[in-house]
Amino acid sequence: MGSYLITGASRGLGFEMTRQLVSLPVSQVNKVFATTRADAPGLNEIAQKSDGRLVVIKLDVSKEATIKEAAEEVEAHLVGKGLDVLINNAGTMLWSPNGVVTMDNLEETFMTNVLGVHWVTQAFFSLLQKGNLKKFANITSTLGSIAMASQYAAGPSPAYKISKTALNSLTVQYALGYEKEGFTFLLSAPVKLTFCLEYLKTDLGSQNADLDVDVGAKATLDKILGAGREQNGQFLNIHVKGWEEKEGPNRYDGVNPPW
Amino acid sequence: MGSYLITGASRGLGFEMTRQLVSLPVSQVNKVFATTRADAPGLNEIAQKSDGRLVVIKLDVSKEATIKEAAEEVEAHLVGKGLDVLINNAGTMLWSPNGVVTMDNLEETFMTNVLGVHWVTQAFFSLLQKGNLKKFANITSTLGSIAMASQYAAGPSPAYKISKTALNSLTVQYALGYEKEGFTFLLSAPVKLTFCLEYLKTDLGSQNADLDVDVGAKATLDKILGAGREQNGQFLNIHVKGWEEKEGPNRYDGVNPPW
Repeated sequence: MGSYLITGASRGLGFEMTRQLVSLPVSQVNKVFATTRADAPGLNEIAQKSDGRLVVIKLDVSKEATIKEAAEEVEAHLVGKGLDVLINNAGTMLWSPNGVVTMDNLEETFMTNVLGVHWVTQAFFSLLQKGNLKKFANITSTLGSIAMASQYAAGPSPAYKISKTALNSLTVQYALGYEKEGFTFLLSAPVKLTFCLEYLKTDLGSQNADLDVDVGAKATLDKILGAGREQNGQFLNIHVKGWEEKEGPNRYDGVNPPW
Repeated sequence: MGSYLITGASRGLGFEMTRQLVSLPVSQVNKVFATTRADAPGLNEIAQKSDGRLVVIKLDVSKEATIKEAAEEVEAHLVGKGLDVLINNAGTMLWSPNGVVTMDNLEETFMTNVLGVHWVTQAFFSLLQKGNLKKFANITSTLGSIAMASQYAAGPSPAYKISKTALNSLTVQYALGYEKEGFTFLLSAPVKLTFCLEYLKTDLGSQNADLDVDVGAKATLDKILGAGREQNGQFLNIHVKGWEEKEGPNRYDGVNPPW
């Protein structure tokens, strides 16, 4: 029995993680709140067949007011119970193909990928406090690893990289701040690309990806569901069988990447 | 012969670095542009006695329009020459004494400490391109090191820490992007504190600091002036004699901190 909330669930990795969460046994996952900023017919379809296990909620992570409204709506659904796991998945990747000095989307990216996560965490914090697992999982990327930056230098998305570094730092601040209260804040990095050739096959990425989205989503959920308090503050990498020996940075070997 | 620009020069570390730069031989530093968002009588006094070597410029790093105006003013002063070194020193440290979940100053901090540096770098980039040294030095802090975060957990400034992590990431993006054009982008970390007890003695810090501001400024300038292209993209720590053996994170041993 566990209740989950996932943001950015209308498509891609978020949609697929939602679909897989709802397909797990009720004994493991009894309620999933999937948030989306726009209409999401695919989600609604799953919700209708879910016997009330999936609830679709409107929420735009870049608009704080919508987050607070969503938190009230979820609280009403939970009728006094807490929320167990929150997956901050919503994110944006914008490009600066002419180099970092021409980057004009850092502020916009930061609002969605960093401040949005902070606002969602703030708004749902008291519901998680009442939950049993008290687990926040923030979807990041090894593109946010400063130590690995030279390996990804050709990727024309500096704002995304910088925002994911900042998200890693934000998450560690939360992890250190609320460890004693029994919270777990972790980072899961399912998305890796090299110049957008290797990537999860989602709408956000290219079709020339390493992994099908169902494989990437499964590996990400395995990490999130399997993580306990001993993973608090950690930067987790997914593990996909057969990818451990791959050359280069895109090795899905389950080993925590460097900061 | 070299021309320098330093932001946030009205007080603290920025003021002291400006004072020391102007006191160096003309053969080493022939022109210093010191930017400040408010009136700075102390700077004006030094400027008046400097035989034109120090020029005070109005610039607010959180207001992009003022940065562009300042760049035009500096360009006019340089009459066709380039700018050699730019020190992004301006920064803000705001507190969240009730924990990261109550943090309401992340956006404001990010605008000044990250976006401000990006805007200044963009606006002056073409002047540095014409310069001989093409060196950008961004003042950061080991508080921005994710790997060291647990050592600084008691410090109530999560927005500052996250912004400095993001600044580190931004700087490495620039370093990787413009290395081939002969640029050097480096990070210098003169400011370290543990719960604000150990700190450079500036207005921003406490008086219970490790170092007098003149010592910290000298050590920071030593790093910046001494760095060459082989330090591109590096996270430099200051070196102060007698502090190499200190216990804990505040060791001014000149060894690059981890990300």
